[in-house]
Amino acid sequence: MTITLIPVKGIPEVREGDDLASLLQAAADFEAGDILVVAQKVVSKAEGRVVGLDDVEASEEARELAADHDPRELEVILGEAARIVRTRPPLVIAETRHGFVCASAGVDHSNAPGPNTVVLLPVDPDASARRLADRLGVAVIVSDSFGRPFRQGTTDVAIGVAGLTALLDLRGVRDSAGYELRTTMIAVADEIAGAAELVMGKTAGIPAVIVRGLDLRGDGGASDLVMPAERDLFR
Amino acid sequence: MTITLIPVKGIPEVREGDDLASLLQAAADFEAGDILVVAQKVVSKAEGRVVGLDDVEASEEARELAADHDPRELEVILGEAARIVRTRPPLVIAETRHGFVCASAGVDHSNAPGPNTVVLLPVDPDASARRLADRLGVAVIVSDSFGRPFRQGTTDVAIGVAGLTALLDLRGVRDSAGYELRTTMIAVADEIAGAAELVMGKTAGIPAVIVRGLDLRGDGGASDLVMPAERDLFR
Repeated sequence: MTITLIPVKGIPEVREGDDLASLLQAAADFEAGDILVVAQKVVSKAEGRVVGLDDVEASEEARELAADHDPRELEVILGEAARIVRTRPPLVIAETRHGFVCASAGVDHSNAPGPNTVVLLPVDPDASARRLADRLGVAVIVSDSFGRPFRQGTTDVAIGVAGLTALLDLRGVRDSAGYELRTTMIAVADEIAGAAELVMGKTAGIPAVIVRGLDLRGDGGASDLVMPAERDLFR
Repeated sequence: MTITLIPVKGIPEVREGDDLASLLQAAADFEAGDILVVAQKVVSKAEGRVVGLDDVEASEEARELAADHDPRELEVILGEAARIVRTRPPLVIAETRHGFVCASAGVDHSNAPGPNTVVLLPVDPDASARRLADRLGVAVIVSDSFGRPFRQGTTDVAIGVAGLTALLDLRGVRDSAGYELRTTMIAVADEIAGAAELVMGKTAGIPAVIVRGLDLRGDGGASDLVMPAERDLFR
């Protein structure tokens, strides 16, 4: 099984209210079974998840966490955080309302529409993925770059999933020698998001990638990838 | 830039002392710039990193951690661990001597050569990758499946790297609008390993994948991906 990762080129700068599905449809030639990975940034922008910092007043807590950074940005981060996991000012690692643990609760000023704006995660990224999947007729992953404990650097992961299996459950499956597998739950949607990042790069202006040749059609969601609190040894 | 992930088929069951480079050379048609991802299991087997449990005597500590599992396997895990990070018997998350934090210190009985054997990580996976890269004339990643805090399921990551950049450093690079990027260190070797896992699957008997179309030639190592203790907020 050969898999191909194809950049979707020619997507213009996305603004609030843009019909992202139409932009993607016009730029890409989809085939049955394709998986489309779309960068969170363009999904959030189309959905208007952008905050102008001039409209934000920083609280005392935000000022304390900001160190030499803009305390208004920290205020937005605190607003997006359901739980603060670690802090080392101005770095905040937080759990979002979706259950994702990531830097700045997903709030980001890179690739934002303006110097005084930040972009938030979609309110419901699985629903964002579902809307695109329904319009485009392919499986969709909304991806974002997350850091990880213990390892340097970010990898892209799936924060929204529609039309495919997010977590491949191989419990009970046996290896070629007949022994039951130890590693039995594979976060395939995260692996796909990471693969797509290799094509997107960070500055190339490629916000979407087609993954072709990998049939994982199913009905998973990115919520499948969130570790339940009771199983989380690092909570 | 389109990337293709190509399975390397026809690798026989690998045993201690096998010339893995020759087996890979015979099975694959490499092109300049290719990255070869090889599953840790076959590298470890070729290097004889296999322990027969009948030769192991379990310590008191191993028996306590084993719960209803084989305490001899826990004994091997303790021997491979430089530091125990978390335990919930029989689950042990440990830091290996390489600095990797993973379940069972990388000790695994799935796809092992026999029912009473376990496979350990290579002693020096960067050196293992280097030996293969030198013989084959391509960049090499040795990959293994690791769990992650906060997220369900495993993803494959790079535990050995030769001939390519493991951690892509974009500090100082600006986005398309001219703002400096927040996410500036990308664990590309981990993303490549995860992408290759999608082709390997877990039961298909595909222990190696060619990644074509992604030029990341460089001199990184998997050690670049280990978070230094002083930067680790989760230590």
